[in-house]
Amino acid sequence: MSGLKVLALCGSLRAKSTNKALLEYAIAHAPEGMQIELADLTDVPFYNSDLLTKPAALERLLAQFAKADAFLLACPEYNYSIAPALKNALDWASREASNALMAGKVAAILGSGGGMGTSRAQYHLRQVCVFLDLHLVNKPEVFCNAFANTFDADNTLIDERIQGLIVQQLHALQQLAARFKR
Amino acid sequence: MSGLKVLALCGSLRAKSTNKALLEYAIAHAPEGMQIELADLTDVPFYNSDLLTKPAALERLLAQFAKADAFLLACPEYNYSIAPALKNALDWASREASNALMAGKVAAILGSGGGMGTSRAQYHLRQVCVFLDLHLVNKPEVFCNAFANTFDADNTLIDERIQGLIVQQLHALQQLAARFKR
Amino acid sequence: MSGLKVLALCGSLRAKSTNKALLEYAIAHAPEGMQIELADLTDVPFYNSDLLTKPAALERLLAQFAKADAFLLACPEYNYSIAPALKNALDWASREASNALMAGKVAAILGSGGGMGTSRAQYHLRQVCVFLDLHLVNKPEVFCNAFANTFDADNTLIDERIQGLIVQQLHALQQLAARFKR
Amino acid sequence: MSGLKVLALCGSLRAKSTNKALLEYAIAHAPEGMQIELADLTDVPFYNSDLLTKPAALERLLAQFAKADAFLLACPEYNYSIAPALKNALDWASREASNALMAGKVAAILGSGGGMGTSRAQYHLRQVCVFLDLHLVNKPEVFCNAFANTFDADNTLIDERIQGLIVQQLHALQQLAARFKR
Repeated sequence: MSGLKVLALCGSLRAKSTNKALLEYAIAHAPEGMQIELADLTDVPFYNSDLLTKPAALERLLAQFAKADAFLLACPEYNYSIAPALKNALDWASREASNALMAGKVAAILGSGGGMGTSRAQYHLRQVCVFLDLHLVNKPEVFCNAFANTFDADNTLIDERIQGLIVQQLHALQQLAARFKR
Repeated sequence: MSGLKVLALCGSLRAKSTNKALLEYAIAHAPEGMQIELADLTDVPFYNSDLLTKPAALERLLAQFAKADAFLLACPEYNYSIAPALKNALDWASREASNALMAGKVAAILGSGGGMGTSRAQYHLRQVCVFLDLHLVNKPEVFCNAFANTFDADNTLIDERIQGLIVQQLHALQQLAARFKR
Repeated sequence: MSGLKVLALCGSLRAKSTNKALLEYAIAHAPEGMQIELADLTDVPFYNSDLLTKPAALERLLAQFAKADAFLLACPEYNYSIAPALKNALDWASREASNALMAGKVAAILGSGGGMGTSRAQYHLRQVCVFLDLHLVNKPEVFCNAFANTFDADNTLIDERIQGLIVQQLHALQQLAARFKR
Repeated sequence: MSGLKVLALCGSLRAKSTNKALLEYAIAHAPEGMQIELADLTDVPFYNSDLLTKPAALERLLAQFAKADAFLLACPEYNYSIAPALKNALDWASREASNALMAGKVAAILGSGGGMGTSRAQYHLRQVCVFLDLHLVNKPEVFCNAFANTFDADNTLIDERIQGLIVQQLHALQQLAARFKR
């Protein structure tokens, strides 16, 4: 039996991104029956319909979207909205096969940073997901403020409240996926 | 005599972008006392604070931001939100000198595409501009649906209603800039 | 056999509201297995936690929320956001029994008016529904521009495209409800 | 010499509203040259264009809008969006004389409550103000979490950080009004 295949996308490209740290915690604590794979957005170019040949990094990403049953979106907040690298990955995937890589699938959003735990960016991302026809986990929302004791020196999430929310959110994602199984 | 220096940014990287066509109309019809310069976002990389050296295309862009008194933002709508290339340019500029390249300046937003004339993306961009401390033209808003008779075969804007709105918006931008002159 | 009980709420209080006309069309064309009941918001007061006794109109409304399996929200756009009468009904219902009248149920949004078919208000309403823990139909979205030939002199919806979208949306609501049946 | 006439509107109708407490602090600490008057929204009915005669409470409110040079909007967050009583007051005022009671005037937004200090509601309100053609203070934004030591037993604001932000915001409003003086 295969289990739920989740593709995790991180909007920040920094090596020591706290958003990546949230995803790493999720990967290490995925509930039974769920496998989470982290996408690499480093070499994905900006969307441009003039581009005739897709670079290898983009082909690899689209193949991951195709295989995924669900998405886990780590959404930093840059200037009160979505990080371009995350939005760009979704934009590329949406143009394939009439959005068949995402339509009708499920997703959860989490994020770290800013005074509001990235909430301003997350609501923008939720609007994007209406068009993408993704069904989102409503609760719990995961808003992580990157304060002094949230991550340790190795960029590992140590805040127990946020750890608990992530585990709850993964269970909610699993349950939502079960409802949308076709 | 100096006049108002406007930096125009286009969220679409396509050669035949209808959003670029709006900016080209604006450039050709700028009111007296306004010069509009079009930024080139082609080689600007994704924002990443790990990046130690800025590529030449980015340095050039930031120098244009520094000189500009005002901004004209052509905002395509991708999946109900902002095009990454536009957001990314603003993100880079915001990190310079505590946002001094934009804070307190003025801007106007226009866009082409989608069933709603990019309005969904434009309201997201307006939220971004709160953090950037840009003062925006409220009216007229320019929502251009890229229908059959809006642009000609050479990608020139031929819709007279939209042409009129752009000219009105440029005048509104000029008046707003006069109010915020320091 | 009971079928799906849908409570319809209209944000406009006008007798000849085009939003009410959309709901009336939905009521008359509900798919088999769905009953739609129209709430009466006329005498529901503004939410105020100081209010000690609930007026009869409010008690009646809350009883309808409790019985409903699903919601159909007719969302006019007033000044680019939600009509207060609709938001107020949801606010009242959310304060009952820790939001048990809505949490985990399903809903669909439609609206008439404005140059954008009420889309600006609908995205605000979608954000509200995250907190209410309502699961929303993603597609089709129903954006109705109240143009000359959309409604007849008796305020009956006659635009066939919008008629078709409403029927599709009701089917989508029925399917979504089936997924969330507990 | 007249000074700047500011009309303050509170979205909460509760007697012990913390949002009203913010406005009371602002009234008591208005900078020289600014008079702030608090509107009474208690008996203002829901907007309904069928209503032929305006109740006295509404006539009084509209007269206050007409006299005001600027607005101070206390924006509670109900279910992630604007409180209906506040939105409704703006909706009524917008229908008078082609929005002449507000167009081109200035405003500031502040709010108390919720885990995010009402930010989710405030960004919705900012979108509303685009249509109303109000020019808003960008910074400082005032997001007040109604925690244990924010207000005293008499509902007086005692948090010094928020007190300072309100005073800064009133100065920013005064400066913005000076720019938009006609």
